[in-house]
Amino acid sequence: MSYKEIAEKTKKTAELYFKGITGEKPYELWRAFDKDLAKDLSLFITGQMYAREKIPHKTRQLITVAALTVLARADELKLHIQAALNVGCTPEEIAEVIFQTFVYGGIPSTNLALKTLKSVLEEKGMW
Amino acid sequence: MSYKEIAEKTKKTAELYFKGITGEKPYELWRAFDKDLAKDLSLFITGQMYAREKIPHKTRQLITVAALTVLARADELKLHIQAALNVGCTPEEIAEVIFQTFVYGGIPSTNLALKTLKSVLEEKGMW
Amino acid sequence: MSYKEIAEKTKKTAELYFKGITGEKPYELWRAFDKDLAKDLSLFITGQMYAREKIPHKTRQLITVAALTVLARADELKLHIQAALNVGCTPEEIAEVIFQTFVYGGIPSTNLALKTLKSVLEEKGMW
Amino acid sequence: MSYKEIAEKTKKTAELYFKGITGEKPYELWRAFDKDLAKDLSLFITGQMYAREKIPHKTRQLITVAALTVLARADELKLHIQAALNVGCTPEEIAEVIFQTFVYGGIPSTNLALKTLKSVLEEKGMW
Amino acid sequence: MSYKEIAEKTKKTAELYFKGITGEKPYELWRAFDKDLAKDLSLFITGQMYAREKIPHKTRQLITVAALTVLARADELKLHIQAALNVGCTPEEIAEVIFQTFVYGGIPSTNLALKTLKSVLEEKGMW
Amino acid sequence: MSYKEIAEKTKKTAELYFKGITGEKPYELWRAFDKDLAKDLSLFITGQMYAREKIPHKTRQLITVAALTVLARADELKLHIQAALNVGCTPEEIAEVIFQTFVYGGIPSTNLALKTLKSVLEEKGMW
Repeated sequence: MSYKEIAEKTKKTAELYFKGITGEKPYELWRAFDKDLAKDLSLFITGQMYAREKIPHKTRQLITVAALTVLARADELKLHIQAALNVGCTPEEIAEVIFQTFVYGGIPSTNLALKTLKSVLEEKGMW
Repeated sequence: MSYKEIAEKTKKTAELYFKGITGEKPYELWRAFDKDLAKDLSLFITGQMYAREKIPHKTRQLITVAALTVLARADELKLHIQAALNVGCTPEEIAEVIFQTFVYGGIPSTNLALKTLKSVLEEKGMW
Repeated sequence: MSYKEIAEKTKKTAELYFKGITGEKPYELWRAFDKDLAKDLSLFITGQMYAREKIPHKTRQLITVAALTVLARADELKLHIQAALNVGCTPEEIAEVIFQTFVYGGIPSTNLALKTLKSVLEEKGMW
Repeated sequence: MSYKEIAEKTKKTAELYFKGITGEKPYELWRAFDKDLAKDLSLFITGQMYAREKIPHKTRQLITVAALTVLARADELKLHIQAALNVGCTPEEIAEVIFQTFVYGGIPSTNLALKTLKSVLEEKGMW
Repeated sequence: MSYKEIAEKTKKTAELYFKGITGEKPYELWRAFDKDLAKDLSLFITGQMYAREKIPHKTRQLITVAALTVLARADELKLHIQAALNVGCTPEEIAEVIFQTFVYGGIPSTNLALKTLKSVLEEKGMW
Repeated sequence: MSYKEIAEKTKKTAELYFKGITGEKPYELWRAFDKDLAKDLSLFITGQMYAREKIPHKTRQLITVAALTVLARADELKLHIQAALNVGCTPEEIAEVIFQTFVYGGIPSTNLALKTLKSVLEEKGMW
């Protein structure tokens, strides 16, 4: 892929996943520290990792929710629950994934993730 | 659900996921320490958690792979990569999930998981 | 054990551990997402795991405090420090356990847990 | 406490906990890199932390087992399961603690810890 | 080293690292629970670990920032970013270390650490 | 930077860090699963992250050692201890960094990292 193609994929993928999400976006945070690196990170993460199509976007986001849940990364999870809803995951599917991770990561991270999901659904008037 | 129904679901789900897998099975390990608790754990984890059908089994196992990868639990991952193949996930899909988790859990756990996947595929003559 | 016996044990154990604690209880959170699963989780965790009597309840809760401290799960720790006080652990014992975990989990999680303990003791007028 | 008192406590506590354990002892490893620091670490960890008597040694070691289990630190756990047996914990109590941590740290670390416990009991002819 | 020498080193090192930092200091927290142990911890951590001179203080603090970032310990990181600035690390160097850890610990902990760095710089009027 | 410049930087940086190291290299592992992604990962991690010059290569590798130590990623640490020696870190500096991380990540991960360092030094005839 040419640089231009990656840049286009990055833009398109960012639109799909992160349209309308609330909270400080990682890209803006990176950019405040280092513009060039922010670009490199964005092109790599969004344009080269998320843009891949070997698994459906819905599956990709459920996987992200699972990983962030067991790692107990609440801020990042909030962004990615919004992204999961953006690509078509239902609240029920997201909750199911979070419940399942209890077996691997323990109930405390499940509970933290459920609270995060609840807060996103409340903000969106979906609760 | 009655106890009998849960026991049947446990058996059926265990068959589906864990048929033919190599390595010490957790159930046998639990049983060596405490028979009653082994049964409780098995009925709960296999019969009440894995047996749920709100997401497809394939998705469930990809989620398990993601969680075990970022937690760097290699032994458990080996069992669940075999289970993922059992429920129909392809090696390509499993690899894709492992690669994706780099973004959330870092490259060392991705590398450990890829080595684990490679070893399973080698054992099965699929490499 | 019959289902009815487990349900009774769950109720009795929940009373013992969680009576009068503040903050959203996990059971209520689970229930808001999935009533049946909330029941399964509650019967398993409270009725089948916590209700076991191979070690005294006091020891069990000190172990819970140790696990939650090194995992740095502050919300869950807050609930379980209250539960530890409910089953008869003293603030000094709880603090001692938290201090000891420094050796295994590092001082940052010790500090987080001590702050959590302090906040519980303040709320209860025990500080 | 004077330096001499701490040194005596260190020696006495090390005897109590680590007598006859197999595997490379941390103190020897530290010493191979830095003799002075090895001494500082030993006096602090063994003489000032483990030697404390606010909770019984048995409770202290069960707590150590819990912390090491959820952190999935198998090598260190092996040493401390031996230490737990040295101070009077039974295999049943140790197994119970490991099973309980499933709720907080997930089943993969429980399984790893049970395997470790089994290997210690086998080495000691207690299996 | 005599006890008196360690005490002097502790005081001098604490001055160097923690002068003027905001937020509850760990020493005060420890002291509120156990005065003797607080002293032991302080003499060991500050007087015997941080006071070592085998690597420059600046390198030591960048290492601390790296460790706290991948462990996602935000409160502790806030103290140690202030300490890093105290011993002469620049905001650019601290940001660089945080960005680099993405490769090992994943982007969520990088993002959390960058937010923490930003908040420290804002408080100090350096943003 | 043009693609060609990044590719050159990747090659040069890989030479500097990873020349002569033993063990399966991550790049080869990635390549066995997905050639294109292996290239993307390599160009990004080696050419865009490691190649940065805002901190000296020696500092960068000590930071890597710190991060991998507290995360307890032994395989990856083995590679990066070799890389640290390649860019000019001494065994004493590496050991010092590992010892220091005890304060943040606990002694079990320090011990694991010291064993790893010892094994690398033994292989290289430096022990």
